[in-house]
Amino acid sequence: MTNLGLPVPPGFTVTTEACRRYLATGDQPPGLDDEIDAHLARLEAERGKRLGDPADPLLVSVRSGAKFSMPGMMDTVLDVGLNDDSVHGLAAAGGERFAWDSYRRLIQMFGTTVLGIEADRFEDALAEAKRFNGAERDVDLDPAALRDLVAAYQRIVRAATGIDFPQDPREQLDMAVRAVFDSWDSDRARVYRRQERIPEHLGTAVNVMAMVYGNLGPDSGTGVAFTRDPATGAPGVYGDYLTDAQGEDVVAGVRTPVPLAELERLDAASYRELRRIMALLEEHYRDLCDIEFTIEHGRLWMLQTRIGKRTPAAAFRIALQLVDEGRISVEEALGRVTGEQLAQLMFPQFDPEAKPEPVAVGVPASPGAAVGAAVFDSDGAWHPGPVILVRRETSPDDLPGIIAAAGVLTSRGGKTSHAAVVARGMGKTCVVGAEDLQIDYARKQFTAPGGIVVREGDTLSIDGATGAVYLGAVPVASPPVVEYFEGRLTREQRRSDPVVQAVARMMVYADERRRLGVHANADTPEDAARARRFGADGIGLCRTEHLFLGERRRLIERLVTAVSDDERDAVLAELLPIQLGDFTGILAAMDGLPVTIRLLDPPLHEFLPDLTDLSVKVALAEERGEADADDVRLLAAVRRLHEQNPMLGLRGVRLALAVPGLAAMQVRAVALAAAARIRAGADPRPEIMVPLIGGTAEFELVREEIRRVLDEVAAETGIALDVRIGTMIELPRAALTAGRIAAHAEFFSFGTNDLTQTTWGFSRDDVEGSFFPVYLAKGVFADSPFEVLDEEGVGRLVSIAVEEGRAVRPDLPVGVCGEHGGDPASVRFFDRTGLDYVSCSPFRVPVARLEAGRAAAAAKTGEADTR
Amino acid sequence: MTNLGLPVPPGFTVTTEACRRYLATGDQPPGLDDEIDAHLARLEAERGKRLGDPADPLLVSVRSGAKFSMPGMMDTVLDVGLNDDSVHGLAAAGGERFAWDSYRRLIQMFGTTVLGIEADRFEDALAEAKRFNGAERDVDLDPAALRDLVAAYQRIVRAATGIDFPQDPREQLDMAVRAVFDSWDSDRARVYRRQERIPEHLGTAVNVMAMVYGNLGPDSGTGVAFTRDPATGAPGVYGDYLTDAQGEDVVAGVRTPVPLAELERLDAASYRELRRIMALLEEHYRDLCDIEFTIEHGRLWMLQTRIGKRTPAAAFRIALQLVDEGRISVEEALGRVTGEQLAQLMFPQFDPEAKPEPVAVGVPASPGAAVGAAVFDSDGAWHPGPVILVRRETSPDDLPGIIAAAGVLTSRGGKTSHAAVVARGMGKTCVVGAEDLQIDYARKQFTAPGGIVVREGDTLSIDGATGAVYLGAVPVASPPVVEYFEGRLTREQRRSDPVVQAVARMMVYADERRRLGVHANADTPEDAARARRFGADGIGLCRTEHLFLGERRRLIERLVTAVSDDERDAVLAELLPIQLGDFTGILAAMDGLPVTIRLLDPPLHEFLPDLTDLSVKVALAEERGEADADDVRLLAAVRRLHEQNPMLGLRGVRLALAVPGLAAMQVRAVALAAAARIRAGADPRPEIMVPLIGGTAEFELVREEIRRVLDEVAAETGIALDVRIGTMIELPRAALTAGRIAAHAEFFSFGTNDLTQTTWGFSRDDVEGSFFPVYLAKGVFADSPFEVLDEEGVGRLVSIAVEEGRAVRPDLPVGVCGEHGGDPASVRFFDRTGLDYVSCSPFRVPVARLEAGRAAAAAKTGEADTR
Repeated sequence: MTNLGLPVPPGFTVTTEACRRYLATGDQPPGLDDEIDAHLARLEAERGKRLGDPADPLLVSVRSGAKFSMPGMMDTVLDVGLNDDSVHGLAAAGGERFAWDSYRRLIQMFGTTVLGIEADRFEDALAEAKRFNGAERDVDLDPAALRDLVAAYQRIVRAATGIDFPQDPREQLDMAVRAVFDSWDSDRARVYRRQERIPEHLGTAVNVMAMVYGNLGPDSGTGVAFTRDPATGAPGVYGDYLTDAQGEDVVAGVRTPVPLAELERLDAASYRELRRIMALLEEHYRDLCDIEFTIEHGRLWMLQTRIGKRTPAAAFRIALQLVDEGRISVEEALGRVTGEQLAQLMFPQFDPEAKPEPVAVGVPASPGAAVGAAVFDSDGAWHPGPVILVRRETSPDDLPGIIAAAGVLTSRGGKTSHAAVVARGMGKTCVVGAEDLQIDYARKQFTAPGGIVVREGDTLSIDGATGAVYLGAVPVASPPVVEYFEGRLTREQRRSDPVVQAVARMMVYADERRRLGVHANADTPEDAARARRFGADGIGLCRTEHLFLGERRRLIERLVTAVSDDERDAVLAELLPIQLGDFTGILAAMDGLPVTIRLLDPPLHEFLPDLTDLSVKVALAEERGEADADDVRLLAAVRRLHEQNPMLGLRGVRLALAVPGLAAMQVRAVALAAAARIRAGADPRPEIMVPLIGGTAEFELVREEIRRVLDEVAAETGIALDVRIGTMIELPRAALTAGRIAAHAEFFSFGTNDLTQTTWGFSRDDVEGSFFPVYLAKGVFADSPFEVLDEEGVGRLVSIAVEEGRAVRPDLPVGVCGEHGGDPASVRFFDRTGLDYVSCSPFRVPVARLEAGRAAAAAKTGEADTR
Repeated sequence: MTNLGLPVPPGFTVTTEACRRYLATGDQPPGLDDEIDAHLARLEAERGKRLGDPADPLLVSVRSGAKFSMPGMMDTVLDVGLNDDSVHGLAAAGGERFAWDSYRRLIQMFGTTVLGIEADRFEDALAEAKRFNGAERDVDLDPAALRDLVAAYQRIVRAATGIDFPQDPREQLDMAVRAVFDSWDSDRARVYRRQERIPEHLGTAVNVMAMVYGNLGPDSGTGVAFTRDPATGAPGVYGDYLTDAQGEDVVAGVRTPVPLAELERLDAASYRELRRIMALLEEHYRDLCDIEFTIEHGRLWMLQTRIGKRTPAAAFRIALQLVDEGRISVEEALGRVTGEQLAQLMFPQFDPEAKPEPVAVGVPASPGAAVGAAVFDSDGAWHPGPVILVRRETSPDDLPGIIAAAGVLTSRGGKTSHAAVVARGMGKTCVVGAEDLQIDYARKQFTAPGGIVVREGDTLSIDGATGAVYLGAVPVASPPVVEYFEGRLTREQRRSDPVVQAVARMMVYADERRRLGVHANADTPEDAARARRFGADGIGLCRTEHLFLGERRRLIERLVTAVSDDERDAVLAELLPIQLGDFTGILAAMDGLPVTIRLLDPPLHEFLPDLTDLSVKVALAEERGEADADDVRLLAAVRRLHEQNPMLGLRGVRLALAVPGLAAMQVRAVALAAAARIRAGADPRPEIMVPLIGGTAEFELVREEIRRVLDEVAAETGIALDVRIGTMIELPRAALTAGRIAAHAEFFSFGTNDLTQTTWGFSRDDVEGSFFPVYLAKGVFADSPFEVLDEEGVGRLVSIAVEEGRAVRPDLPVGVCGEHGGDPASVRFFDRTGLDYVSCSPFRVPVARLEAGRAAAAAKTGEADTR
């Protein structure tokens, strides 16, 4: 901003290089001290004041300056240079109240961020001071009260650290610089970087700037501005302003600010100047900018600017506005939105018909509809099921809770408060500033108007679009973007919704550019139909086991526990017409498009009662002399079939080989369904996929049986079927022997979930609540490899299999049907590796289409950033 | 033999090529029929008889001729060409009894092998005929009785197949040839080939030979001869002879033959000629030969010869005899023995002091001492725990039972009976011809002299060295070869035992030649000491979890269920001195040699009570109002720690990262133990191994902690420790990222068991009783990949890791500590892949030394056969 000629307070920067060396060695790099001295001397000369001069002190702010915005994550210390002497000098220049208020801010910020004292201790003292003095807001405290507060703060520092608050201004500066460096390595910053995929090694710079004061009275203030509306993407003035305050007051949400537009009334000149600068900055950054400013006695100062965070809706709209304004290309626009953002736009909303009276209405800070159990801190966020984190305001310490929560509700703060910014960045529903709620952390409850008490665990619903807070679970409805994909919007409705318009246009751009096909994982006719509406090019995975949920589960239970061939064959005979019906429906829904049907795959115990539960039930029944013969028989079967590690047991192709007639029954159902569709003049395109093979021998055996049944059905029906037979590649050994497998298999589909399980040797069922949190905290993973494909390990196997499979069968179709099909980095990897398609759940199909388009656009622009 | 000028009945051979084409297409190759006609015409001309000529029929035998001996596995049909007419012609030439006996043999053999009729149906008819005629042996049946028997057999054929026994001799021949072809593909032959590692694709030839008759009266007979004693390896005449019999009678064990030496008395000329031919054959084959012959009216005919099966003891002795006789090189001698044979020589024997009176004594047919539950058929062999298969005689149908059994006991047959030959080949203990036992299949019991009844499930002990059969479990003692390795034999004892001498000499040859080091998997000071006595070059794997069995298990239970840091630290403090003691003992036992200590590895549930059992216990106790607070608390912990797939859960390095202080405690114990040993003037060489890493990040974190503790202990003790820190490579991802791991790890050790589990995606715990039998039966595996390393999949990962690890760290030591370290094919693979050592259990150390020597010898001679 200095280079753009904008009014920035003078200062200097300690580089990221110094930070990285400090973090590596634990010491300030040699020479840094002298450099800071020299810069400081220049700054003092420019301002005509000396740092901490008792008569007229120069004060500085010490802020982090990282490459990527990490709002609230990095430490900032304002008013550095104040001490028991210079506070009087400052009072002489700006008044008693201002000076003591600044001093207590310094001690409070320095105490928490540099000395690591719990923020509550200062907050409690402040609350006590307000109570004692009958002050409602902190600005209502008079100089004497503030002086007492400073003394109280100093006692807190002494009690907590054993040292006095440092009086040497230069020592304050050094400690603050180191604290900013250290904050790069704090747990909360690591967590945030992982969440946002910011590289760990970057480090942070430190900006030391001469203080300008927003807390010099009614003609001063501080604010945050956005160049477009980061919530809706609408152009225009957007932001918050707080009179007689320092910057931290706005983002900390301690007082509720006024909308930025109010500034025009309060200080028209500064407002005009700010608008001019906002236009300049957006021109420069070619994107939405997020600006912090301070007005000191009517003079505007720019403190900081960054590319602004925005909601998903805003991301789509702004990217296309920028295209239309000629500032960025379509490829760049695709880079400005993510599949995850699109997914957020597809999150359900509350059913407008079903909304009850809200118990409170706060500020809508991040859209969406969240329903969950109320919890009051990060620990509570591990409550089973979705939760709503309820806080007075949030601080970086609440980050784990925000990540875990479905939504965030605060009783203080505005749209630019910590809670709002962080939740928006993560696409979590967020309502802030619901001031009617009295939150009691100690009792883990809040009281709403009318004396309604909500305790931890009670269900809440919060509406991020309106700010409404409801008791109980409010029914949710489909959002407009989903209605659009479903084809349920009229032309008029489409036109009148700018978000739908933006998404529709972006999808066209993505589809025009993408090389990867997008198939769906769909198991029922209903899913198949939806997948087709959502733009799927076919079904990449029909999990036949999912056809056996609910009542039908009993059939598989009977199949598995059959003790004679006759009994088993009888169950298979019952299953055949059911499967025939299923497949007919799915083929009808996907007429003309490929439908890849996977033979029964999962561990059989999934279809059996839990061994422990049933054992207890039978033991108790026997104890009471009420043993049920069926239960006893079933228990014997469950014991017989019990496996120590079902993921590594009898499943996949092993079932097809170990349970005679099972695969044949399924193939017969597929073939009969296809033949009936052909006879009806339709165009069914079933493919049969064999799961979990380890090598070519298993595949050949099953393929032979499949071919036999297909030939039988062709002979019976007189209808020749062209059914491709392929295989999942989901075990390391299958990938390692893919060349030989490709000699027999007509297509490959990577099951990246299973492949990740076996390549890493951990199961998703077991590790996410076990050592995964430790691994994420220690940085072993940047992301769960179940969410973002592990390119180095699992990806290497994928590459080997594609390369060696295609060496044998050059036109081998290769897809992926794991959950990685919707992750941007993973999709980009699959695109690069030459896969033909990704397959994902119907709801993720638009997401994957967008990501596939983004991957193609990124390949074109050479853009490497996968965020 | 024909080429050697030996007296072989004239005949011709249908090639393996024809077999392979037949098996591939299901049809006789075109032209084969004409060729057989031409050969047959030549044979008829040579013998001056026509096949099946009613007046004077040429009869032929139809035998398989496979590359590798598969005794009893492949079908043979004798006397082909007989029918209701030619039987009279044969009677005119050889007498009524001979002719009708031959005809009933043809129908019986043809019926069972070609037409697939159950052997019992013919056996029952034969038994009935003997009973009806008051005949004790089949030779006691007179011509009229045999004629009736033929009629009865023909009725059996008609009833079982709906067709008459074929009367056309040429049709008989064609069907017999096809049956021999088909027998290559029979389940029993597949099972045998898998067991013996004979390639599936070879196929069998068919030898059609003019019949010579051993059943022409007292000057005729048939026998089996070995050129050296296949049981002990002693030189000399060895075999069985049966007067007035056809070849199948000897190997089927129907009558008990006389020792071959008796032939000298019965027919001195034939005996001399046989001895001459035996010498000639051994000269030709440069190995022990197994010969089938027939004497027809005093004329010796050679029917078949093959390299003979032998006991492990004989294999060692014969190989060295051949070296000493200058017939083979030392390298070849190493190829003539296997590690598995050495292992068999190390199997326990019955304690000579503790043997009770035997209930019966049979013929010792294959050495060893077997204790197990009596079972009477292959189905019973799946009885839990070791079993002894008890049969009157065995047939190829009993093969699954023999494979599953610890030992085989029969009431009929001699040392060359089916049971004896097969058991010897597999190294199973076997006693045959225990004629005092009355075996009742229907009741699944046998009666021994004195009316003692032994039922299925009763424990038996059989001594393959003496033929003794004992009731109950007889204590076993250490065999001489083990006593030798233990260093407990005097010089005199060593010299007087030819087997010990042979083994000792072979070990010298192996050690002189081997490139691979042999380390031991040893977890206690006792194991370590034994490993050293058995020739280990160090400890490749000390599993620290094995130090927590028995009473100590409670400590780990407490560690795992600790709910506070204090509680956990208290347990760790208790563990430290215990581990210190363990490691001190192990380092003392292995002074001067490397000891690789692995950090705690196994899934924690192994140290906890079973969830289901404990749930039932608590539920029942609560029902009775007797709930135990400790149990309830423990159940909560077990539930909390329960994993769906413990093999894929919290274990290995994950424990080190998730349980603070655990790794540090173990490393501290190692370091303190080593420091104490150094202070005592010893030479401890501990290394620390991190288990189950998936990539470099995990390893670096743990390595940092290990280094920290080592430095701490060095500072505390003033003794600098040089402890290498390396890692297991036991997950596909570790192998795939080995290059990066090698930048930090100072050695690699492949855990091929775990690597096999994850590469294939099945756990050893779950699959061996589940789909593995199906997979082995269907030929998906030739061997369990847990026994023979899967070179294509797991081996490829090993190769990748070795290559990429050494590219980064050229002197990286690489070993293997899975159970594949004792398997010959696997050892050869590890040798070829450039590993530095294999590590195996102390008892397998000599086996691995031998295999390593064999691998080196094979590499030298270019020998590819890994059997």
